[in-house]
Amino acid sequence: MTLIKKPVTGMKEIMPREMEIRAYAQGIIRETYESFGFTSIETPCLEDINNLCSKQGGENEKLIFKVLKRGEKLNLETAKTEADLTDMGLRYDLTVPLVRFYSNNANELPVPFKALQMGNVWRADRPQRGRYRQFMQCDIDMFGEATNMAEIELILATTTTLGKLNFKNFEIRINDRRLLKAMSDYAGFDKDKFDEVCIILDKLDKIGLEGVKEELVKEGFAETSVDRYCALFDRADGTLKTLDRLKELLGEALPAEVSANLYEIISSVESVKEADFKMVFDPTLVRGMGYYTGTIFEIAIPEFGGSCGGGGRYDKMVGNFTGTDVPACGFSIGFERIVLLLLESNFQIPGKGVKCAYLVDKDMAKDLYAKILKSASEDRKTGKTVLVVKMNKNKKFQKEKLTAEGYTEFKEFYADSYKG
Amino acid sequence: MTLIKKPVTGMKEIMPREMEIRAYAQGIIRETYESFGFTSIETPCLEDINNLCSKQGGENEKLIFKVLKRGEKLNLETAKTEADLTDMGLRYDLTVPLVRFYSNNANELPVPFKALQMGNVWRADRPQRGRYRQFMQCDIDMFGEATNMAEIELILATTTTLGKLNFKNFEIRINDRRLLKAMSDYAGFDKDKFDEVCIILDKLDKIGLEGVKEELVKEGFAETSVDRYCALFDRADGTLKTLDRLKELLGEALPAEVSANLYEIISSVESVKEADFKMVFDPTLVRGMGYYTGTIFEIAIPEFGGSCGGGGRYDKMVGNFTGTDVPACGFSIGFERIVLLLLESNFQIPGKGVKCAYLVDKDMAKDLYAKILKSASEDRKTGKTVLVVKMNKNKKFQKEKLTAEGYTEFKEFYADSYKG
Repeated sequence: MTLIKKPVTGMKEIMPREMEIRAYAQGIIRETYESFGFTSIETPCLEDINNLCSKQGGENEKLIFKVLKRGEKLNLETAKTEADLTDMGLRYDLTVPLVRFYSNNANELPVPFKALQMGNVWRADRPQRGRYRQFMQCDIDMFGEATNMAEIELILATTTTLGKLNFKNFEIRINDRRLLKAMSDYAGFDKDKFDEVCIILDKLDKIGLEGVKEELVKEGFAETSVDRYCALFDRADGTLKTLDRLKELLGEALPAEVSANLYEIISSVESVKEADFKMVFDPTLVRGMGYYTGTIFEIAIPEFGGSCGGGGRYDKMVGNFTGTDVPACGFSIGFERIVLLLLESNFQIPGKGVKCAYLVDKDMAKDLYAKILKSASEDRKTGKTVLVVKMNKNKKFQKEKLTAEGYTEFKEFYADSYKG
Repeated sequence: MTLIKKPVTGMKEIMPREMEIRAYAQGIIRETYESFGFTSIETPCLEDINNLCSKQGGENEKLIFKVLKRGEKLNLETAKTEADLTDMGLRYDLTVPLVRFYSNNANELPVPFKALQMGNVWRADRPQRGRYRQFMQCDIDMFGEATNMAEIELILATTTTLGKLNFKNFEIRINDRRLLKAMSDYAGFDKDKFDEVCIILDKLDKIGLEGVKEELVKEGFAETSVDRYCALFDRADGTLKTLDRLKELLGEALPAEVSANLYEIISSVESVKEADFKMVFDPTLVRGMGYYTGTIFEIAIPEFGGSCGGGGRYDKMVGNFTGTDVPACGFSIGFERIVLLLLESNFQIPGKGVKCAYLVDKDMAKDLYAKILKSASEDRKTGKTVLVVKMNKNKKFQKEKLTAEGYTEFKEFYADSYKG
């Protein structure tokens, strides 16, 4: 029988060069977040299908890989719908599992609880270049901190991490769902239509402000309201001046604590930040997930078009599990994009040890071979990588190949001239 | 709606203390194996269901979590069997995916190819204490090396790794499938019954040699053959003397290269080994998987009853994918057991930095708070973990909790006495 050699559709195999970068980036991420007092936790890759299909995940719920029931629970004859056939699914993000974990273990966890997660998630998206159906997410989340100490720390920890990975000159764009609501109210849009307005505003990157205007009108929103709405974004320049202006325009429609919160986060981060980046106030920032309740933020890296991660406050989600809301705020790094950028920039991992290849004569006697292994072991103690490998007939070609793999030192051992 | 707080049946949540040990152990494993020239690779957690159900995996194939087809490929009305409903499954080990990976990428890979994999696997086993349905495996494998250079290196690399993780006084038990065959032939058992004989011999740990004898007789094997067979294991003491004796008894039934191979591996490893362990020749070692073709080995740690990992040579498996056999040999560490032993021995991770908690007055003004964050950031540069957290009313209790989390230094910041 011949088996299938290709990986399953839309999922990738990771080769040694990329694995090195991934391990290095994961190390920096873990080390930096831990220095801020975040602690790692892990949940199973599979979750109860009811948790995954509970409307927390928006569009992602359509992309779940579902697992077939097993044993007597599976009854093909009586099964009428998909729901009869499955009991679990592969997680599509790390947030729903984390909130479940927190709800299950809150009594044992410190307050505030600061979690770090690095793990794979799965989405049955249409396969396309650079987008895979299995990918890694790196999330930090804080539970039990209602003030913007949470936002400030999440942003400082994430940007410090990106700085250590050599990213420069990037932006953290910030906004607040409550400001988005206030602007929609101010324009005179129906409160029920808020989500629809946000979905259209979210296209601004692609279709521009004129495009947003046109689409709003096309969708039946009153032209005067649309004009009033779009005028709010007219002179947005990313600075706090834009926020001043919005505050003035919106007046009482915008709760004072919303703007105060944004001022505090932006100014605190700006005065403490380590990495080379800018805080940008962006009143057009939407972030897809419906579960956000306050501040939202996103990483924009110039070398990369779209967002390289983001997060925000979701104070209502724990309540879905326990009946009691708990303040929560998280920041997710787009790990696969970060790795892609590092690979494309030909990133060199600092402080890597020397790689040395021992080329050993095929006819080497076993007792001499043991001496070579001992010498390799001594060399490894100095921090070197030592590859012990048979010498090929075409030694030159073999060395070229090894050089391409990063080997810079070579030692040759011949059976007839071994000196110990 | 209230969601389900428990993780899915048989899968565990991993708390911070265990995560620290896991990350440390993974770091040591990666670093040590890489110093031997192994390179990391990764394959998707999902594999084509046909590859998983191809009789490579023995009993594990009954334990596969299967994934439901999606979209138009799923047709509930016409589906008659499980096979109609699924196209992928979660891998039950790392070997089948690795052999597929090697078959798919052999042209780009060095010769020999030395792979390191660390990843989760899934088996829908009956849940029981200490045994989970999702668990991590750490495997090294070597393709393209037909001589025992492969076995010697796999054993040295794995034992060096275990030594670095503080394991002492353990054993590597070694045997050869070809010796098992020779012994079965020598006893006069039917060649077709070889697998059955092995399954019974494999119970020796639990039922003793007398139990094996009884079961063989009960299963209908001739008593004289059974006596002849069991006499082979009579004076087995783990040393090379036992091998000498078997060699003499079996005569031509045992190919000379099989015993020579075992002598060479045992003596080479003994003369080069770094860690505190013993090579033990164990003619009763079977190893479950049917795909082994030569040497087989297993880690036995005194603190732990059963095996903590194992491996062997499987020279015929690549051929199932490509039609052409390639020599292959692998060694898998029982990562979950290693972690369990480290946790139970209250293992202290060496060289961990100081953990310092900043307790900050709730009424701290924002500009002073920014100064505290700056000071935290300076402290982190010295290698410390710095947790910035609000001071509770019951400061004493708060400090006790933090001490339990490993914090040993405390700084207190009051709004009315901040000196910058």
